[in-house]
Amino acid sequence: MRAYRSLATRFARIGAVEDAAGILGWDAQTLMPKGAAEGRAEQLAQLRVIAHEILTAAETGDLIAQASDDEAGLGAWERANLREMRRAYLHASAVPGDLVAVSSKASSRSEMVWREARATSDFAMLAPHLAETLRLQREVGEAKGAALGLAPYDALLDGYDPGMRRAVIDPLFSRLRAILPGLIGTIRDRQAMMPAPMPLPGPFPVEAQKALGLALMRAAGFDFERGRLDISLHPFCGGATDDVRITTRYDEADATRALMGVLHETGHALYEQGRPPAWLHQPVGNARGMSLHESQSLLIEMQACRSAEFCAYLAPRLRDVFAGEGSAWDAENLHGLYTRVEPGLIRVDADEVTYPAHILLRYDLETAMISGDLAITDLPGAFDEGMRDLLGIVVPSDRLGCLQDIHWPGGSFGYFPTYTLGAMAAAQLFRAARESLPGIPADLARGDFTALRGWLRENVHQRGSFLETDELLVTTTGKPLGAEDYMRHLRHRYLGEG
Amino acid sequence: MRAYRSLATRFARIGAVEDAAGILGWDAQTLMPKGAAEGRAEQLAQLRVIAHEILTAAETGDLIAQASDDEAGLGAWERANLREMRRAYLHASAVPGDLVAVSSKASSRSEMVWREARATSDFAMLAPHLAETLRLQREVGEAKGAALGLAPYDALLDGYDPGMRRAVIDPLFSRLRAILPGLIGTIRDRQAMMPAPMPLPGPFPVEAQKALGLALMRAAGFDFERGRLDISLHPFCGGATDDVRITTRYDEADATRALMGVLHETGHALYEQGRPPAWLHQPVGNARGMSLHESQSLLIEMQACRSAEFCAYLAPRLRDVFAGEGSAWDAENLHGLYTRVEPGLIRVDADEVTYPAHILLRYDLETAMISGDLAITDLPGAFDEGMRDLLGIVVPSDRLGCLQDIHWPGGSFGYFPTYTLGAMAAAQLFRAARESLPGIPADLARGDFTALRGWLRENVHQRGSFLETDELLVTTTGKPLGAEDYMRHLRHRYLGEG
Repeated sequence: MRAYRSLATRFARIGAVEDAAGILGWDAQTLMPKGAAEGRAEQLAQLRVIAHEILTAAETGDLIAQASDDEAGLGAWERANLREMRRAYLHASAVPGDLVAVSSKASSRSEMVWREARATSDFAMLAPHLAETLRLQREVGEAKGAALGLAPYDALLDGYDPGMRRAVIDPLFSRLRAILPGLIGTIRDRQAMMPAPMPLPGPFPVEAQKALGLALMRAAGFDFERGRLDISLHPFCGGATDDVRITTRYDEADATRALMGVLHETGHALYEQGRPPAWLHQPVGNARGMSLHESQSLLIEMQACRSAEFCAYLAPRLRDVFAGEGSAWDAENLHGLYTRVEPGLIRVDADEVTYPAHILLRYDLETAMISGDLAITDLPGAFDEGMRDLLGIVVPSDRLGCLQDIHWPGGSFGYFPTYTLGAMAAAQLFRAARESLPGIPADLARGDFTALRGWLRENVHQRGSFLETDELLVTTTGKPLGAEDYMRHLRHRYLGEG
Repeated sequence: MRAYRSLATRFARIGAVEDAAGILGWDAQTLMPKGAAEGRAEQLAQLRVIAHEILTAAETGDLIAQASDDEAGLGAWERANLREMRRAYLHASAVPGDLVAVSSKASSRSEMVWREARATSDFAMLAPHLAETLRLQREVGEAKGAALGLAPYDALLDGYDPGMRRAVIDPLFSRLRAILPGLIGTIRDRQAMMPAPMPLPGPFPVEAQKALGLALMRAAGFDFERGRLDISLHPFCGGATDDVRITTRYDEADATRALMGVLHETGHALYEQGRPPAWLHQPVGNARGMSLHESQSLLIEMQACRSAEFCAYLAPRLRDVFAGEGSAWDAENLHGLYTRVEPGLIRVDADEVTYPAHILLRYDLETAMISGDLAITDLPGAFDEGMRDLLGIVVPSDRLGCLQDIHWPGGSFGYFPTYTLGAMAAAQLFRAARESLPGIPADLARGDFTALRGWLRENVHQRGSFLETDELLVTTTGKPLGAEDYMRHLRHRYLGEG
């Protein structure tokens, strides 16, 4: 027990350092003056190195070994906590400290260059930085893979989504790849035969958008005593324990997008705010991987808030807030706007039907980049080709193509698939929730999230990392992650089936 | 050289951790949601412990010893840097780890109790906690004193203002004590014979106050690429290297106070933003102690911006921004408002003539507390007696008396004198600047800070901690810190002499 307690103290310190980095990272994207970027990168790098040093100290390994010998004396949560400590230790100790520092700095730098390269659609400007970031991330993947007995890409993936493997993703994504182009075509044909939804006539003053967003966050159960809503160029959910900060970006010509963005991030935030109170500062209290995290944002946004039921609640509120007149403000039209399917260039603007195509492409490209089968210089061409194949779209410039996302310049390889895995998990969980609580659709039509949030809290949020992802899904939905409920959801919503 | 370089890396890391803590501390006072307070305290405590551990590691001491043996091979700035490293190491390693932890916890606790005790004016509630904090701070002073060869109070003082000693302060403060009550009386009599300045009629919308504050900051030379202005309950200058953040608090009934507050914090910020670029992340690149820091805020606020010349520039701008009408908006009246002398209960509200009386009193009391000559139970009586003696004011309640300041409950003994030492240094430096650049008053009348800022940058800011405080003053003003220029300034501004 002494070894375990000593580990708990050690991991609480790591948690505090990570929380500190969370607030500094949030600040960098919301308020930080431009000239502070270099210093902030240094601060974040140092905090990461410090957390890494505490985590990878020989003493940590010794304590884990001692505590493991003594595991019989631990309770179930303590054992799960020890398992997560071991996982974190293995991931971190696999990577030499120098490589951590160098790769973190390289990522910060290429992320900074990317901001300018994207603005000017200048891939050549980014290329050397991206190549360096890739090279270092491949090294990280190789180092972790050697320690964990995994291929480099699986090792990187495991860092975002513990337990996830290419062997799980490949068949799921193959199925999507086989079905998706046809499904998109069928849905597009069907929507073409119906009257196109009318755009809501603006303008939409920022203050009114913000007030409505705050009201919906409150309705969904966001705790403002332990979190905030702010503005950033790229919306995200960040911050720290008991200080969950989501962001959005307002467009005075279109209120629908920021609103759904706020609800998406609120889904992430509910997960963070709902983690098990007694374990908040321990590894087992953390959210269980990025797929499940994305499932929570997509469950709130896509499953709950883009439903016909919630649109019936939302439409009159939108009309009130923006003094709307005419039938564009009717619930049916709003639902039509929120379920319009249209292949487009930008991933983050994609509807839920075409979105997976963007992910399939990126998954192919990043697995090839990590394996060395795709060189950075060939990335723009491969990207554009994939867009043509998967969505029938011609990419007019790198700004709207392979330069659009921050992930690769920021050093995140192995992250992209979790978006679509999350969409699948969301459909699976929402279906289980409705089977357990059939009143949920009627609740949403009244803007009442209480029952849904309670179910999520109990079945997902409060479990933290107590269960492995697939254990959680089996316990909660009766089966491991699959594509069926997701495909069924798309067929139901977009083709009126089932 | 290897030992020195290794130290530089080590201290750069400490600097990055301190910068991180600076941003987190800023956030805690500006934006943080209420429920995050406990977590934030934990994050800050962990960062402090981490910085302390790096600083006091045996290896740090060994490296300092090695580098000192090798000092001949170092350049002048490197030698000064090593001196500052040694100072930081001696201060930190003098105090046993247990005492650091216990005294820091006791201070947090008594600071928390103080918030409630002040609100209810309940000194008895605070007394046992303050006694414990005092006892532990005395222990800290004794431990540091033993290591540095100083008396306990001098050792505490040295932590805020390197090199400052009671032997320097006592004669300076004795002179003030002899002169001040008579001077205040004379000035009050003189002001009583003149028409009282008219208050500016409000209201003053926050947005307009903010816009004017930002414009004045810009005029004074604040670099918004490396800093921000925000709102907090208690105004301060904080943040990090290349990210200097000042705050203010707006009152829609009075614009003059927030405006001067912004200029005061701008003075601190110019110092921070003007530190030597090549040494920003090393101890020698830090600002030289609290007296000199306060001299920079008071030089901008009291010496420059409350001058008749700057009021002539400011008055028409105030009139424009707030659409003012009538003679209250005339420069002479504004100058009258900004130089009104009136003894009052609250230190932070005091004018520059009566302010030192508040400091003389606190200096007497805290030196007596540290030496054991004043028991906590006798503090309220001694405080009230001092206010009567020095300012002729009867303290109606402890809330407006000895409970008004956070310093003692927070464990800061030895900080108070730096406010008045800073006021003296400000007068001395401003006089030297004007002797060197006689155009400064005329510049200020045009809102032009360029020459003054250039002088401060060269003579103070860019020196960082290269020179000891007195060396800097001798080099820059021809003499060590004294009270003459300060008294001359008061006689000139308030009695029209010289």
